[in-house]
Amino acid sequence: MNKLRIGMIGYKFMGKAHSNAYRALPMFFPEALQPEMKALCGRNPEAVRQAAGQLGWQEHVTDWRELVAREDIDLIDINAPSDAHKEIALAAARAGKHIFCEKPLALSLADSCEMLEAAEAAGVLHMVGFNYRFSPAVRLAKRLIDSGRLGRIYHFRAWFLQDWILDPEFPLVWRLQKDVAGSGSLGDLGAHLIDLAHYLVGDIAEVTGMSETFVKERPLAAEMTGLSAKAGAGAPRGPVTVDDATLFLARFADGALGSFEATRFAAGHRSTNAFEINGSLGSVRFDFERMNELEVYFTSDEEDVQGFRRVLATDPAHDYAAAWWPPGHTIGFEHTFIHEMLELSNAVQEGRQPVPNFRDGVKCQAVLEAVERSAAERRWIEIE
Amino acid sequence: MNKLRIGMIGYKFMGKAHSNAYRALPMFFPEALQPEMKALCGRNPEAVRQAAGQLGWQEHVTDWRELVAREDIDLIDINAPSDAHKEIALAAARAGKHIFCEKPLALSLADSCEMLEAAEAAGVLHMVGFNYRFSPAVRLAKRLIDSGRLGRIYHFRAWFLQDWILDPEFPLVWRLQKDVAGSGSLGDLGAHLIDLAHYLVGDIAEVTGMSETFVKERPLAAEMTGLSAKAGAGAPRGPVTVDDATLFLARFADGALGSFEATRFAAGHRSTNAFEINGSLGSVRFDFERMNELEVYFTSDEEDVQGFRRVLATDPAHDYAAAWWPPGHTIGFEHTFIHEMLELSNAVQEGRQPVPNFRDGVKCQAVLEAVERSAAERRWIEIE
Amino acid sequence: MNKLRIGMIGYKFMGKAHSNAYRALPMFFPEALQPEMKALCGRNPEAVRQAAGQLGWQEHVTDWRELVAREDIDLIDINAPSDAHKEIALAAARAGKHIFCEKPLALSLADSCEMLEAAEAAGVLHMVGFNYRFSPAVRLAKRLIDSGRLGRIYHFRAWFLQDWILDPEFPLVWRLQKDVAGSGSLGDLGAHLIDLAHYLVGDIAEVTGMSETFVKERPLAAEMTGLSAKAGAGAPRGPVTVDDATLFLARFADGALGSFEATRFAAGHRSTNAFEINGSLGSVRFDFERMNELEVYFTSDEEDVQGFRRVLATDPAHDYAAAWWPPGHTIGFEHTFIHEMLELSNAVQEGRQPVPNFRDGVKCQAVLEAVERSAAERRWIEIE
Amino acid sequence: MNKLRIGMIGYKFMGKAHSNAYRALPMFFPEALQPEMKALCGRNPEAVRQAAGQLGWQEHVTDWRELVAREDIDLIDINAPSDAHKEIALAAARAGKHIFCEKPLALSLADSCEMLEAAEAAGVLHMVGFNYRFSPAVRLAKRLIDSGRLGRIYHFRAWFLQDWILDPEFPLVWRLQKDVAGSGSLGDLGAHLIDLAHYLVGDIAEVTGMSETFVKERPLAAEMTGLSAKAGAGAPRGPVTVDDATLFLARFADGALGSFEATRFAAGHRSTNAFEINGSLGSVRFDFERMNELEVYFTSDEEDVQGFRRVLATDPAHDYAAAWWPPGHTIGFEHTFIHEMLELSNAVQEGRQPVPNFRDGVKCQAVLEAVERSAAERRWIEIE
Repeated sequence: MNKLRIGMIGYKFMGKAHSNAYRALPMFFPEALQPEMKALCGRNPEAVRQAAGQLGWQEHVTDWRELVAREDIDLIDINAPSDAHKEIALAAARAGKHIFCEKPLALSLADSCEMLEAAEAAGVLHMVGFNYRFSPAVRLAKRLIDSGRLGRIYHFRAWFLQDWILDPEFPLVWRLQKDVAGSGSLGDLGAHLIDLAHYLVGDIAEVTGMSETFVKERPLAAEMTGLSAKAGAGAPRGPVTVDDATLFLARFADGALGSFEATRFAAGHRSTNAFEINGSLGSVRFDFERMNELEVYFTSDEEDVQGFRRVLATDPAHDYAAAWWPPGHTIGFEHTFIHEMLELSNAVQEGRQPVPNFRDGVKCQAVLEAVERSAAERRWIEIE
Repeated sequence: MNKLRIGMIGYKFMGKAHSNAYRALPMFFPEALQPEMKALCGRNPEAVRQAAGQLGWQEHVTDWRELVAREDIDLIDINAPSDAHKEIALAAARAGKHIFCEKPLALSLADSCEMLEAAEAAGVLHMVGFNYRFSPAVRLAKRLIDSGRLGRIYHFRAWFLQDWILDPEFPLVWRLQKDVAGSGSLGDLGAHLIDLAHYLVGDIAEVTGMSETFVKERPLAAEMTGLSAKAGAGAPRGPVTVDDATLFLARFADGALGSFEATRFAAGHRSTNAFEINGSLGSVRFDFERMNELEVYFTSDEEDVQGFRRVLATDPAHDYAAAWWPPGHTIGFEHTFIHEMLELSNAVQEGRQPVPNFRDGVKCQAVLEAVERSAAERRWIEIE
Repeated sequence: MNKLRIGMIGYKFMGKAHSNAYRALPMFFPEALQPEMKALCGRNPEAVRQAAGQLGWQEHVTDWRELVAREDIDLIDINAPSDAHKEIALAAARAGKHIFCEKPLALSLADSCEMLEAAEAAGVLHMVGFNYRFSPAVRLAKRLIDSGRLGRIYHFRAWFLQDWILDPEFPLVWRLQKDVAGSGSLGDLGAHLIDLAHYLVGDIAEVTGMSETFVKERPLAAEMTGLSAKAGAGAPRGPVTVDDATLFLARFADGALGSFEATRFAAGHRSTNAFEINGSLGSVRFDFERMNELEVYFTSDEEDVQGFRRVLATDPAHDYAAAWWPPGHTIGFEHTFIHEMLELSNAVQEGRQPVPNFRDGVKCQAVLEAVERSAAERRWIEIE
Repeated sequence: MNKLRIGMIGYKFMGKAHSNAYRALPMFFPEALQPEMKALCGRNPEAVRQAAGQLGWQEHVTDWRELVAREDIDLIDINAPSDAHKEIALAAARAGKHIFCEKPLALSLADSCEMLEAAEAAGVLHMVGFNYRFSPAVRLAKRLIDSGRLGRIYHFRAWFLQDWILDPEFPLVWRLQKDVAGSGSLGDLGAHLIDLAHYLVGDIAEVTGMSETFVKERPLAAEMTGLSAKAGAGAPRGPVTVDDATLFLARFADGALGSFEATRFAAGHRSTNAFEINGSLGSVRFDFERMNELEVYFTSDEEDVQGFRRVLATDPAHDYAAAWWPPGHTIGFEHTFIHEMLELSNAVQEGRQPVPNFRDGVKCQAVLEAVERSAAERRWIEIE
């Protein structure tokens, strides 16, 4: 195999991010197994034709079943709306394709498990799109923790704050509909926090949470792009069926305490995906709006110069940085996907499961469902 | 009455802060009814004598009952350890003295209620020491909320993070003993967050929380000053009987969601007392380590220049600022007490209850107990 | 013309940035005239072959004269070392090619003028690589100034601080040799500051400056990549013939005062390219290490909420942002080049001179030379 | 001597800061020789009477000559407008009094020298009010430099930015009149930067500078308090005779390069007194608006965690901090004066010259005059 031949389903926000990542690999990671962008799939023939041209795909198709069945494709990249993930993934697995699936893996834990089992039964490789793991600054946090430089972890607190639906007249896009999106801020934003918690601290043992939908009805949407949308004047209204905000507390298996908050109602926060971790020997802090930075504190610093360091994770000592620009020259959101696809490509080349994979997707889904149950039943729920 | 004659019990950390506040009033708030520092009370005769001299008290006594009984004293200031608050306050009320009591009001909700009832029955004025309300930046937040400039409040998140007992060899000081301190990080730090929540957002309807004591045994302390202490080598150990960290979620009566975290195990945080409030029209952020600043965001700002403003609350437009230095010249921790004592003095002069008073102390205690119960019973608890 | 056919000379740091920009245009700016990456030129046959493959060029050549003479090329992109700029540009102009030239345009003002005259005489389009103009946050600053929202400008202060040669054992790379690089921190870093000053504030009338070479001899370099390099142990040493640091004051034609500092000896600054501008109605601040942000202050803000706003220039209201990711999802260093090449492409399509062009390069060079003369003659020098 | 008996001349902004400092010493630095606030002097009998009462002085007088002559006074504190400093200081020296004089020492270098000579001839102790030296964070910077932890110093850059006269209708207060104030932003703000440069880096060898008065006429002032003032509507106008802004470059005797900027026209800066120092082993940064913090960088930090540390100078390891509050509990502007008066008191007790003293005032004045001459003559001026 000297190319990883890809068929991708979906071409909006995530589809663009993935396409860009596939195209960047040869230039910045020339040693890696290179992707070949074979075919793009979407339901609207004209739209998918145009997208394929713009995003650099060789072909475009409208039937994902056809795509999945093709002999000349090694991997199916699923970034269609969440309610379509499972069916496609199962078919892809049956067809013996490797699978990259955007998060959340599926609308339920049961569906997620079914996807994992199908992929394992088929012996294919599988990956889930928790892209924030691939920020160099987050990798640095991981290395500090794994090497013991932060000591025993006591606290993980994380918040993913956005404000794009703060206006009550913002329309009822698919991300606000439970049957398509599965959940709201919890599944969209909280899922990333949970995955970072798993990645950085470890398993979550139990949770207790609360959810709220502040704006209960919204005008029906005309169209959506990225995270923006427009509704016509006097548009009819429909019910918002997902959570605007979800908060939960957690106890990790190793005894650390966790605090999580996901909301789309935090005025002034375009996309604050932030966490702080406190250990017995030090702390780290991260905010995605300043994604090149990790703040780091060590208790072992000399007593008159103790303080959080603002580390710019662009030095050769930092993951991925050498592939990019000189120290101090920053990268952006899209680079998390490039690094993600590098892991995908490396794993395929090495014949091993990528990380994070469907197991991580399932683990995340288990916590999501526990949080939902906890909010509904108003009690602590243990994670199985 | 042309002076407010004060007798104070306790002369350590809080006693020093109060004394300094009483002494500063004439210079910076000359219009106010001025305190007269009549007598300081402490158990150790030599120590209280020295403290009285240093802190500027006219006399010193060792028996608080004697102090409370004196004719020439108008107000009793209680900043002895928490377990002594109630008895002294009841006696002071009976003696017809006005009362300033440090937080937490008492070791239990029942005791706090008893204190409030006693003060009300005696018809005396009463105040509780939630000093953080008196930061000019916090007052600005209050004004923005009360005037509607932040709109409907959706989120209150707050964290009070310290690290002074992170070292497992830090000794077992009184603040780590339940019978003296009542609780640990919850009562010491969380109480301030709860009061700020009450002050800024309103009543809390229900809570669910969790607590942890990470270091369960510590060497017995030789001596304590401020927040530092020393234990001798090979000192015997005793059990830590309070929480090292407590987290809880809350639902406010008006529907806002709250997240609270109080811990003494956050490496790198000497005293981060911070909150953020998100409303439908804007947000505010505060961090006590930068107490002169309030970050403020408005959704109504022009679309190309929206962002959190770093407001330095030292302009004439800000509470208390005109009494101090020119704009941009900051004040510190101790000034919160000066403003607090100004409110006390003004209330006495105007014959009204100061704010915050024992009612606020009781309300805070009700939440503290609900959190404790919630942590013990692992379920949501409604605040009565 | 339905493609802009490009031949590029040089493939190191800048060559990679340009190649990436050409490749990104179709995906993110599909309406633009698209570049066709015809041929890459470099002296080392094997290295240029490999680079062409990695960077996505159709062909590779070793003789730039041959490249310049080709019929199937519309534009020559010059990012070879600075001492080669002039000869190539003159030849390209004679051959009727449009020209993109990295900054600094040439090693002297006279050479720069010659290049401008040649390009004008040939009637070709010409652009110079002042990429920082193309940060969305810098564009926002420009718009605020041009629309009068900052009022009359009083102050421009700027500093470009790096630390990559702080170690006296860092080798004597070409950037430290006057005959190749023209100058040191002044031409490399200061040139960007000068161009930003021209772009944002206007013409500089006079300057007075000082320069220093702190480390006067260095080991000869074995090899260089980006801004890093290695010297063998016991390598022979040679003299550093450029400035390690240059500072200068300036008076703008409109009366504003300017302060400039360029240094490679600022420990902790990997690449702080920052400026602040103060006007009668407001101020702006920018730091390239947080390039998505512009801090903005308005005197017209209500008196209790005046403060610098941290504006994240990722909203649809900001230049280029709509082509990228949702608000709050940041971009990086390389994006300045993509926007730069968009301007180049748009200008070619519209048959107009791009901005900034050789005129801006000449203006910058005039200031650079005035600073150098000022430092040598220890007096103010007027800009012609 | 068991008290330091003080007579003070002036009771506005600085007079209040000094009085507060004298009053705070017994409580926070009880071991020090304590000041006795004997008499306050001012020209307006009613105003000085009221000020004496408010500020805590035992007596008040209207004739400074009388004050200087009194037997029961050990030290004269001069904080009258700058044009009165010299005459008072000479008289005080002749009368054998120790002298504390606010900066600037006098209106000219010659006058400053005369004051120094008079004090030395009289054998009295003398101090000048460069209060910013006494910020704990600045002391930390000093210690890092003196102990060699920053290595050889390459750069000192400093800026003192204010905006209180940005409004052209702000009246013509005494600080804008050369005959009273000596100079404008240079003497008022730049003097502090120069002293910090002397304190932290060492002697300045030569300077080149520029000055500007942006608003050349202003309404005559009715009254001034602190840095604010009001003019009546239609008030007559007078010429501003001092600089609104002054910038200069400097070369230190040890080879470091300096950049200085002092302005009252920096919108959004209430009082940004900031510097950064870069050395061969590290850097420090300070901004007075966050005066409890020092940012510190070390090149020796491990390569993956290099970054500026935000050190909160409130730990026991920091100068003065143990006298105040627990770590993380900040102090403010006024505390610089308390520490300044502690040095004064300690020096008197120990029979040594305080630091900074008139020598430092003279050194500062020499640089101020060199900058003025440089701006006038448009050339580098050596400091004698």
